Amino acid sequence: MQLLKDLILKDGKVIDNSILKVDGFLNHQIDVKCMQAIGKEFRKRFDGRGINKILTIEASGIAMAVFTALEFDVPLVFAKKYKPLTMDGSFCTKVHSFTKKMDFDVCVSKNYLGKDDVILIVDDFLAMGGAVCGLVDIVNQSGGKIAGVGIAIEKSFQAGRKKLEEKNLRVESLAIIKGFENGKVIF
Amino acid sequence: MQLLKDLILKDGKVIDNSILKVDGFLNHQIDVKCMQAIGKEFRKRFDGRGINKILTIEASGIAMAVFTALEFDVPLVFAKKYKPLTMDGSFCTKVHSFTKKMDFDVCVSKNYLGKDDVILIVDDFLAMGGAVCGLVDIVNQSGGKIAGVGIAIEKSFQAGRKKLEEKNLRVESLAIIKGFENGKVIF
Repeated sequence: MQLLKDLILKDGKVIDNSILKVDGFLNHQIDVKCMQAIGKEFRKRFDGRGINKILTIEASGIAMAVFTALEFDVPLVFAKKYKPLTMDGSFCTKVHSFTKKMDFDVCVSKNYLGKDDVILIVDDFLAMGGAVCGLVDIVNQSGGKIAGVGIAIEKSFQAGRKKLEEKNLRVESLAIIKGFENGKVIF
Repeated sequence: MQLLKDLILKDGKVIDNSILKVDGFLNHQIDVKCMQAIGKEFRKRFDGRGINKILTIEASGIAMAVFTALEFDVPLVFAKKYKPLTMDGSFCTKVHSFTKKMDFDVCVSKNYLGKDDVILIVDDFLAMGGAVCGLVDIVNQSGGKIAGVGIAIEKSFQAGRKKLEEKNLRVESLAIIKGFENGKVIF
């Protein structure tokens, strides 16, 4: 998606030739028109798959997932990054963050996911695939179907896509980064 | 706002005659059409005030704030619930959560708030006013102006509104709860 790539080139900051910071339009300040365009693009790419719910993870995924849900005319559920006091009522999994070098618990209430759901998973980044694989695990626990995975920014030189495709999931990424060279993003 | 009140009556759960849970359409699963209507309503109520940025706090405020930002055609900034490793580049404050009975740090990067900004603060709940007063403190640190505070659900029997009005801030709430009686919401 050209608009997203343009914003990455204009506002993204490459740190140590390995991390891309997009705090200017996605992770802290949000360009809502870009998020709206992302929602429309996900609708186009996953149309006709019977999707009845969008699933993302707090907090940065929410903005684009809201517009995706609007385009599909379905509810959005966001997974929470903590374990509830009793787990009886929730599907939970553990996610490792390679960026923050820590594990955290991710949960979704059983009230909002179930075996009749056809889910589109949406997230801002796909790198090692930790967060998205956690969401896949949660949907699998619920007995629901996964119609696909929509990603804004993929780092294709990391293992995330491979892990998802091994689970036979269709992954659509709107900006695919092949690598970084001298502090510049290479699509 | 009637749509919001209807959803509260239909889906809200009153716990111990003191806490309202709205996980069905706002805090976990999100009714995006309701969020869109909230954005349009905030635009109407705060129109003509020169607002150039929307400010909210992660995570539940983001969905309605995204649509508010879209209506005003301005960026959204969401405050983060942790202290960065170095605070040189951030405006930070401490917020007490009466629901969770704990303090947490809330920060916004200096890159995304400054003295030329005219801010509309948006949040899902106003009760004791902890989170919103924290956002007010952050804008004050930045030297920016506050054009108003837009709230989805206010519990008018708690002190939040009084605290904000003592700071001469205009507060607009879309559903005002006067109290709970026998597990029912009284508007």
